[in-house]
Amino acid sequence: MAELLPVIGQIDESTLMLEPLEAAVVTAIRRQGPLSRSDLSEYLDYSRASVTGIVGRMIQTGVLTEAGEGKSAGGRRPFLLDINPNLGYVVGVDIGATSLDVALADFRGNILRQASEPADVRGRPDEFLGHVADVIDDLLARQGAIPAAVVGIGVGVPGPVEFVPGVLIAPPLMPLWEGFPIKSFLRERFPMARVAVDNDVNIMARGEHQAGAGRGLDNFIFIKIGTGIGCGIISHGEIYRGADGAAGDVGHICIDYNGPVCHCGNQGCLEIMAAGPAIAAAAEARAGAGESAFLAARLAERGSLSAVDVGDAAASGDRAANEIIRRSGKMIGGVLATLINFYNPQAVFIGGGVAGIGHGLLSAIRQATLRRATALSTRHLRIEYSPLGEDAGVIGGIWLALENVFIIK
Amino acid sequence: MAELLPVIGQIDESTLMLEPLEAAVVTAIRRQGPLSRSDLSEYLDYSRASVTGIVGRMIQTGVLTEAGEGKSAGGRRPFLLDINPNLGYVVGVDIGATSLDVALADFRGNILRQASEPADVRGRPDEFLGHVADVIDDLLARQGAIPAAVVGIGVGVPGPVEFVPGVLIAPPLMPLWEGFPIKSFLRERFPMARVAVDNDVNIMARGEHQAGAGRGLDNFIFIKIGTGIGCGIISHGEIYRGADGAAGDVGHICIDYNGPVCHCGNQGCLEIMAAGPAIAAAAEARAGAGESAFLAARLAERGSLSAVDVGDAAASGDRAANEIIRRSGKMIGGVLATLINFYNPQAVFIGGGVAGIGHGLLSAIRQATLRRATALSTRHLRIEYSPLGEDAGVIGGIWLALENVFIIK
Repeated sequence: MAELLPVIGQIDESTLMLEPLEAAVVTAIRRQGPLSRSDLSEYLDYSRASVTGIVGRMIQTGVLTEAGEGKSAGGRRPFLLDINPNLGYVVGVDIGATSLDVALADFRGNILRQASEPADVRGRPDEFLGHVADVIDDLLARQGAIPAAVVGIGVGVPGPVEFVPGVLIAPPLMPLWEGFPIKSFLRERFPMARVAVDNDVNIMARGEHQAGAGRGLDNFIFIKIGTGIGCGIISHGEIYRGADGAAGDVGHICIDYNGPVCHCGNQGCLEIMAAGPAIAAAAEARAGAGESAFLAARLAERGSLSAVDVGDAAASGDRAANEIIRRSGKMIGGVLATLINFYNPQAVFIGGGVAGIGHGLLSAIRQATLRRATALSTRHLRIEYSPLGEDAGVIGGIWLALENVFIIK
Repeated sequence: MAELLPVIGQIDESTLMLEPLEAAVVTAIRRQGPLSRSDLSEYLDYSRASVTGIVGRMIQTGVLTEAGEGKSAGGRRPFLLDINPNLGYVVGVDIGATSLDVALADFRGNILRQASEPADVRGRPDEFLGHVADVIDDLLARQGAIPAAVVGIGVGVPGPVEFVPGVLIAPPLMPLWEGFPIKSFLRERFPMARVAVDNDVNIMARGEHQAGAGRGLDNFIFIKIGTGIGCGIISHGEIYRGADGAAGDVGHICIDYNGPVCHCGNQGCLEIMAAGPAIAAAAEARAGAGESAFLAARLAERGSLSAVDVGDAAASGDRAANEIIRRSGKMIGGVLATLINFYNPQAVFIGGGVAGIGHGLLSAIRQATLRRATALSTRHLRIEYSPLGEDAGVIGGIWLALENVFIIK
């Protein structure tokens, strides 16, 4: 039976107020997927009778719905409980340096409508966010819904975030955004929405944790390789931010004291030597030196090269391109080996624009990592491209929103 | 009024069984020190009436005692509640590569009796641990107590530990200990004790967290510099172990692909280049080359040099010794900068035998760290020698034991 997705009107906020144990039921289902009453009783370590009572009230208030039958353990097949998807809408917003992704989702995190477009974050935040709100309005209109039906918005931004107030601190890419009140700005347009803001790599790590290859993992790293290099950290099952919200700033790890000067002022930072622009610059140099017919032709055609061009050249068997990619992978893998010795994660997921340039990069990263991390810390380690790909950020935004939609009494 | 410390006999295990909320009261007091009923009500977010009921029962069963008066918030001064120190004894055991430290403590973690001696872990674990049990028996006898009064033992060992079973995995320093059942071995001698085993740097980090400069901090690193270099990580207020219990293995981070071969088989590991033996070897070389009269005299006197000798030389103004120490500090600080960019801790505490060689090492570590970590991640960062010094391990062992003495129903 296909599920009906009714258009949701204004939300009665009292529905979203939960007792602590009800919140624990929601968390359990979000972590494990639909559960039976017996599963919940075991998971929460509460009696079957208590769980039945709690679940009964939650079905009555509309927070839970019965979602088909589970496997029988002998007797009658148990009903599975899931979050009611139609309690309201949430929105994930992934603001990249040069792109904007927005998705409207239901309360189970299923994407209903999505929009992606090029963008430029260097301008005024009120103008940029006004446009974001217009995009959300447009998605709502296509869904036949009103702004007051949005109860949560999760926003990822490409810069350091002070999480509680949700403001950017000294963001190098978008200086005009420093301290801008993103939360209250969006609340003016979506008055029923709780807004949360986080760093782009943190929301990608969250997306991977909730809905990607990181599901069920307690400790992993998500590395984004694009114009810069950053990483999101999951520790004890939660986003790890560090003392100043600065954790994961791996792009400015020094790999060569005599290396080129980075935009941060230091020499030999990983990102100035190995990220997208370094790959592109190396390719232009090799094209100019006559070392790659493919890259020279592409350069002549387009006037400049990108990391994606280098990936295309490598895919066609171009030796110079393959060397450039292997060199970047080796540098990134060398840093990763250090981080793995320290952090011993269960997995490393790699995303961002440069992750799209082919398997050669991943293979070089893996080799360099395994060569220098300890045997014990790599014996179960997975190093993989993010299966969510370009959507990791917007999916993470949706889950950041969902984290905040219920209010615990 | 001085507190009486009665000799404790065999423990009634039912006293140590707690309801979940009672366990939360214990945790709150351990984190914050003695608390009033109002403090507890606020901290636990439970009504004053509920807290009064819970606390009343816990005083009756003997888990809590009233411990003097707190500050008045206007009216009568509130009674403070603390853990009853006399519920039983716990023991902290810190096994180093060449030393053994054992301490007998009460239920508040106060050390009652302590013993330290040189030791050699390379032999048979049953013999070594049999001796540890004898040392504990001796401390108990001096206290006038019986083995059945010991309800918790926390053991730190210098090697990788699989925490739940409490066994060592492929320990390079003590291969005969691989898989040895430390817990059941000690339980035979102390039948009422719950035994927990952890890596030496993890217990040092735990000691610092519970009773040292790390109190109240959620995220910090404890680095031990001795024969090797290792680190314990506190994340979200708890020991972070990683996927395979291998987190914190920073001694084998590569700092020079062409460096000397480490005992792990790789080249240029941090510990082979910067730890105690490297400092001693550099000093012997400089003494042999006639570059330090102090070191040459000490070498002639003792036949070999240690890191402590180099510290003595540096304290006397010896230039070669100072250069050796600064070089080690620079290498360690370089790695630390990388870890700080990734992990953004609130503090880094440095302990272990080599930490005792003077301020020059700390100063060099700080300089190198601040030079290459990002400004944001160091703006509130403290880098300090561990104030617990040599006792960090045994204090951590006591707290590891205390973590496990109550059983949650």
